[in-house]
Amino acid sequence: MRIRLDIAYLGTRFEGWQVQDVVRDGARPRTVQGDVQSALARLHGTEIAIHGAGRTDAGVHADGQVAHFDVPDGAPEIPLPGLSRGLNSILGEDVRVLSAAEVASDWHARFSAAGKVYVYRLRLGEVLHPHRGLVEALWRGRLDVDAMRRAAARLVGERDFARFSAGSHVADTVRRLVRLEVGSEDGGLVTFTAAANGFLRGMVRRLVGTLREVGRGRVAPEDALDRPGPTAEARGLTLARVIYPPDQLK
Amino acid sequence: MRIRLDIAYLGTRFEGWQVQDVVRDGARPRTVQGDVQSALARLHGTEIAIHGAGRTDAGVHADGQVAHFDVPDGAPEIPLPGLSRGLNSILGEDVRVLSAAEVASDWHARFSAAGKVYVYRLRLGEVLHPHRGLVEALWRGRLDVDAMRRAAARLVGERDFARFSAGSHVADTVRRLVRLEVGSEDGGLVTFTAAANGFLRGMVRRLVGTLREVGRGRVAPEDALDRPGPTAEARGLTLARVIYPPDQLK
Repeated sequence: MRIRLDIAYLGTRFEGWQVQDVVRDGARPRTVQGDVQSALARLHGTEIAIHGAGRTDAGVHADGQVAHFDVPDGAPEIPLPGLSRGLNSILGEDVRVLSAAEVASDWHARFSAAGKVYVYRLRLGEVLHPHRGLVEALWRGRLDVDAMRRAAARLVGERDFARFSAGSHVADTVRRLVRLEVGSEDGGLVTFTAAANGFLRGMVRRLVGTLREVGRGRVAPEDALDRPGPTAEARGLTLARVIYPPDQLK
Repeated sequence: MRIRLDIAYLGTRFEGWQVQDVVRDGARPRTVQGDVQSALARLHGTEIAIHGAGRTDAGVHADGQVAHFDVPDGAPEIPLPGLSRGLNSILGEDVRVLSAAEVASDWHARFSAAGKVYVYRLRLGEVLHPHRGLVEALWRGRLDVDAMRRAAARLVGERDFARFSAGSHVADTVRRLVRLEVGSEDGGLVTFTAAANGFLRGMVRRLVGTLREVGRGRVAPEDALDRPGPTAEARGLTLARVIYPPDQLK
């Protein structure tokens, strides 16, 4: 039996999604995958590996991460939604299983996905509010939202994003960026929404860093493609949603 | 020179606002007042006492706590807004000085206040979202919002709220509760907004606990005044605003 888990987390105190095979200060780095796997092992009495839709970096958050696992032969089949309740009673408050559902045995959290949507939150001002600032990054200055929107329109498309990666080791660096929107709310919050069939490592944060350089007037909107900017801070980034058919990437 | 500080904090990791004269596990309990006073002492090179508008309990948050202090004779007068920037660079991320302003020497954060507004956030459902759940409490079940609104209308008024206190030692327990509103948002968030010229210790949380008993059908709306309920969890409560003239309590 294959189970899909929808997971939200605050990345602040995690060293990313993926289990790391290292020991630091006498312990494994705390990862979301590691915590969920430990909780599953406790509930089922046996080791269980989960497969995530994407590997978020240290400090990056998720609203809608998706993962799957197979209930091992002989392990108890825990009825849903008792499973998510059980997992949440074991997990720290900064990671929550939002839902658990049975899926087809050939469904795969990563390979069945049509794409992903990320949101980056940049607060313009002097301070991050302690109630919501953990999922935002701070920018002390102004940004030209119109210029960033013009630049974003030029970045959208199917192209080789190798130069917008923070060091990726994949062979194929072509991605289809179908949406890159810049929103602006009262109170000085600028949001960047990026949707693509896949993202290279660090790609959203470099796209945001690039647009930010445009927004502060250092790069012209029409030059954005040729002048990748720095990698924006991890804390502003949230994996908002993973898209599976029949939902379309748009 | 007297300075007013507007302060927001996430109460989760604080044992309340007020400095406590006890030692636990070899240390003073962490309090918001204590942290701000330490930061002020570091900036000014001398001890400085601050006076808050109200003492929030352990785990209670603030959007708009207000405090004042006097710059001691001989201490450097740090120009505003360099003061809030300096304080925020010393303080933990869970407490932020939103603004600092000079006030008249007879202005007092507590005694000049006309009243306070508190908001309580109760999430109906199975899980608290890790991005915003730290300022919410969870309720696994349904609540009858209309019944709670009818009960709230009966609680409003000037009356002796001694029975709605979690053990207050003040002599005068009469308070003027001018507003007690129950809001309901999509996604299952119920908000309670309470405004009064003053609150007894634990009073907002007991008002919420009382309305919750009405909401679940255990107490009739017309009996709410005579049947104070339990004290709702601290984590859902936020000191939203302190009101000073010329602003009116309403």
